[in-house]
Amino acid sequence: MNSTINTQLNHRTIRKFTGEKINESTLKTLYEVANRTGTSMGMQTYSIIRITDSEIKERLAVIGKQDYMKDATELFVFIVDQFRNAEIARAQGVEESLLNDMDKFFQGFTDASLACQNMIVAAESLGLGCNYYGNIHNDTQAVIDLLKLPKLTYPVLGLGIGYPNQEPALKPRMEMDIKVFDNSYKIYDDYLDLLKDYDQVMQTYYDLRDTKKALDKFTLQVKGASENFIEKRKEIMKAIVYQGFDLML
Amino acid sequence: MNSTINTQLNHRTIRKFTGEKINESTLKTLYEVANRTGTSMGMQTYSIIRITDSEIKERLAVIGKQDYMKDATELFVFIVDQFRNAEIARAQGVEESLLNDMDKFFQGFTDASLACQNMIVAAESLGLGCNYYGNIHNDTQAVIDLLKLPKLTYPVLGLGIGYPNQEPALKPRMEMDIKVFDNSYKIYDDYLDLLKDYDQVMQTYYDLRDTKKALDKFTLQVKGASENFIEKRKEIMKAIVYQGFDLML
Repeated sequence: MNSTINTQLNHRTIRKFTGEKINESTLKTLYEVANRTGTSMGMQTYSIIRITDSEIKERLAVIGKQDYMKDATELFVFIVDQFRNAEIARAQGVEESLLNDMDKFFQGFTDASLACQNMIVAAESLGLGCNYYGNIHNDTQAVIDLLKLPKLTYPVLGLGIGYPNQEPALKPRMEMDIKVFDNSYKIYDDYLDLLKDYDQVMQTYYDLRDTKKALDKFTLQVKGASENFIEKRKEIMKAIVYQGFDLML
Repeated sequence: MNSTINTQLNHRTIRKFTGEKINESTLKTLYEVANRTGTSMGMQTYSIIRITDSEIKERLAVIGKQDYMKDATELFVFIVDQFRNAEIARAQGVEESLLNDMDKFFQGFTDASLACQNMIVAAESLGLGCNYYGNIHNDTQAVIDLLKLPKLTYPVLGLGIGYPNQEPALKPRMEMDIKVFDNSYKIYDDYLDLLKDYDQVMQTYYDLRDTKKALDKFTLQVKGASENFIEKRKEIMKAIVYQGFDLML
């Protein structure tokens, strides 16, 4: 165990921040860490939109249906960015670049996700707290419009960073032996039995968002997730096509 | 600057390993770090296939067209996993779960990417070296078949880990001010001019894979990437549909 791993094993979502500003040199360090992250073929096909405009923050909080999102000290949206490279190619005479296929989309999606996680680890190592905002996909198209994202870009994940003003408990996870398999996927006979202990642990964990009630068992949460959806979230592929990516079906 | 950030700023791809085994307790620590990574809605929709079978390693190296892949001391494939949760729902009477839409696919894709990056930072903090293998997507369907991935799973990224047997130079990156924008996407007038210095830096960087020749300028590499593709990589969406995800177009 070292301090890096210690930081990582203590990750929890922070939703309340003190409001203390993050200074520019710290931000620069975080960007440098993002920049050093592995990137497919060295192509660096992601970008980061830093949201400093409080109106845009509020709009994102409405889209995300999480009011506390607008109070994030720093708020970022990591995006797929094949636009930049397409422009670089165009400046060299390539009118119809092949950067619009889904392989290139996923290249950017992976680049953006990896850079985001790397920046989170760096932030947490400095005592900052972080919150992922997957909720931008409650209405992906609205986020595209709001941030004026050009063709061949696409929002992947939001990230809030700030000095923590809460100390939530570690959210329990399934044991890793249900998630790591040797050489091929392993299908279990009885998942409910397998998760009996975890279900119990989850029931004793209180989510700080609502301290008045304990969470459902994990298996019941999964059942809920498997029966419900947010209408706009069915339109994700439409947003990707709108952004100029060719599904090639 | 702390030791975590120092590790992160020193990231480079390691393709040659000493072959020294990674002991089980270290692996367990790496899994625990992966497990602690933020996961959308707490749903933990990824899994890891650990490849120990040398025949499967060799097959992956052939698919990836990188011979050194089979010599990775540890080789993992991170996958989207909505299968497990669909089974958990099914055991509670949900015959037709809604875990097959693209929103859930991307939930898993993001979960898998974040966990992979987190594990990489932990590994590097322990002196291990890492190599991302996006090349599994040279033939995604072949990887699905090889690892016997059930419906509602999908391979995201391969990862090789081992003790480094090389010390490559840091691969230069574009400056972050070309990648971080305030509030909305910023389009530049002249990308070639903007990248003039970076182009020069890249030409003086020698990739260890071929020390006999310097790399092209970055902008020329991008031009190349925008004009070429691997045939099978056009079939990525077909593989996703094959795995049971509904594009809802």
